[in-house]
Amino acid sequence: MRVLALLDGTIADPQAPLFRADDLGVMRGDGIFETILIADRKPRELGPHLDRLEHSAALLQLRLPERAAWERAVRAVIDNWPWDTDPQMAVKLVCTRGVEGDDNPNGFAMGMQIEADTLRKRSEGVAAVTLERGYAPDLMERAPWLLLSAKTLSYAVNMAAMREAAARGADEVIFTATDGSVLEGPTSTVVLAQGHTLLTTPPSLGILKGTTQGALFRAAEKAGWQTRVTKFPASALFESDGVWLASSVRLMTQVRSIDGIEIKADADLHAEIDRLYESNY
Amino acid sequence: MRVLALLDGTIADPQAPLFRADDLGVMRGDGIFETILIADRKPRELGPHLDRLEHSAALLQLRLPERAAWERAVRAVIDNWPWDTDPQMAVKLVCTRGVEGDDNPNGFAMGMQIEADTLRKRSEGVAAVTLERGYAPDLMERAPWLLLSAKTLSYAVNMAAMREAAARGADEVIFTATDGSVLEGPTSTVVLAQGHTLLTTPPSLGILKGTTQGALFRAAEKAGWQTRVTKFPASALFESDGVWLASSVRLMTQVRSIDGIEIKADADLHAEIDRLYESNY
Repeated sequence: MRVLALLDGTIADPQAPLFRADDLGVMRGDGIFETILIADRKPRELGPHLDRLEHSAALLQLRLPERAAWERAVRAVIDNWPWDTDPQMAVKLVCTRGVEGDDNPNGFAMGMQIEADTLRKRSEGVAAVTLERGYAPDLMERAPWLLLSAKTLSYAVNMAAMREAAARGADEVIFTATDGSVLEGPTSTVVLAQGHTLLTTPPSLGILKGTTQGALFRAAEKAGWQTRVTKFPASALFESDGVWLASSVRLMTQVRSIDGIEIKADADLHAEIDRLYESNY
Repeated sequence: MRVLALLDGTIADPQAPLFRADDLGVMRGDGIFETILIADRKPRELGPHLDRLEHSAALLQLRLPERAAWERAVRAVIDNWPWDTDPQMAVKLVCTRGVEGDDNPNGFAMGMQIEADTLRKRSEGVAAVTLERGYAPDLMERAPWLLLSAKTLSYAVNMAAMREAAARGADEVIFTATDGSVLEGPTSTVVLAQGHTLLTTPPSLGILKGTTQGALFRAAEKAGWQTRVTKFPASALFESDGVWLASSVRLMTQVRSIDGIEIKADADLHAEIDRLYESNY
């Protein structure tokens, strides 16, 4: 099931072609995106997602259509979704640079069914592998042209990393920097629990600012947990009370093993983390 | 001027949409491409370009349509190009992974006019800047999921690097590895001349195998030049008798300055390099 809305709020046929062959989004992966969970007709973290879309656009020097247009398109998808059969869905916002020389970015919002496999991972947890990302932890600040904190359409490496995980019998990837510190997943943010402290990697290491992780941390702070945004080595993954991959659609997915080694993955703690996140809504 | 051919050899309207919004080429930059010069109706280095397309497909585990389909599409573009007004053009071959789950890659060949700015750079030379690529020179072999030798549609970083060059008042970029050795340009291969020796960077450092550089080196060897494929530091750019950026469309573009410093850019040597390359055809 897919529902496609254009930025003027009109609904289009998702099976009909929308992009010219020479759109720079097609030819160069030159564009940005966000994926947002809609549960019970309500978008989660729409504001932070649109903030990050604007951050990505600024890094790519992309003229982004106005915020109201994105909100309108999301609304159109929600209004046209078959909620009776699917109480949750993901909306993907995409903006490409358009055809070279036209300065006319192309955007859309597409509502997509959440796959059974995703829901299964949410409830059962995942096996992850660590893979080198090849970047130094201080690279982002001195090399902004590498777009390390932008959510661009150039995701071929992220997809290849997921295939590498599958080839190793795992579901997910945790990228590491050249000094061995933990970065992020190809489509998720890494969160650790150590006692009543939650940890995550700082965006200054060249990763995306996590919207779901951000929501969890705000809820955790209200509930009396400590939160730390700090660099940590891959060894910390094995020494914590729990590891999660936070993403908009998969929410807090518990990691059960890393590089074939089982790690602590307590069901009660997972339920508590889930409740914390949900307490925002 | 654009001429669009599909892989069955039919001609399509380049201004009409061709890709669905949920094609993985659009959503994830998940696909590959090649750009080929067609001069006087003849494709240059078509074999090496199709070889590299197959290499890229293998790295992405992408089921590539058969070679004959690409040759047919290139032929259709050539047959429909207005040669009387444009004696040279570039054909871009693109193959995306298609819609998720369909296992049905989408490809096309598009003939495109060579821009006046490109022709000007070919004849006048360019100013280049060196920019960090952030990768170690030995990364490719141990981290194939980074797709370092694949020509993928995920080119947002290459485009951002070109904008960075423009912001610094330059035309082109020469990427360097973490150890300061020279990698490649965002859309070109770096070639140095030292006496009657031509040098270029080995693909094992995580760069694309250059098709134009390859053609030049074959011609140079026939003409009695030495060629070396070897790692060299950025300092060698300043100490050579000439530096060129080799690319299919721009051919051998002479570099006149690097990071604002003028380098040796002899007109006679440039003419000789150009003649060497052209002696293949």
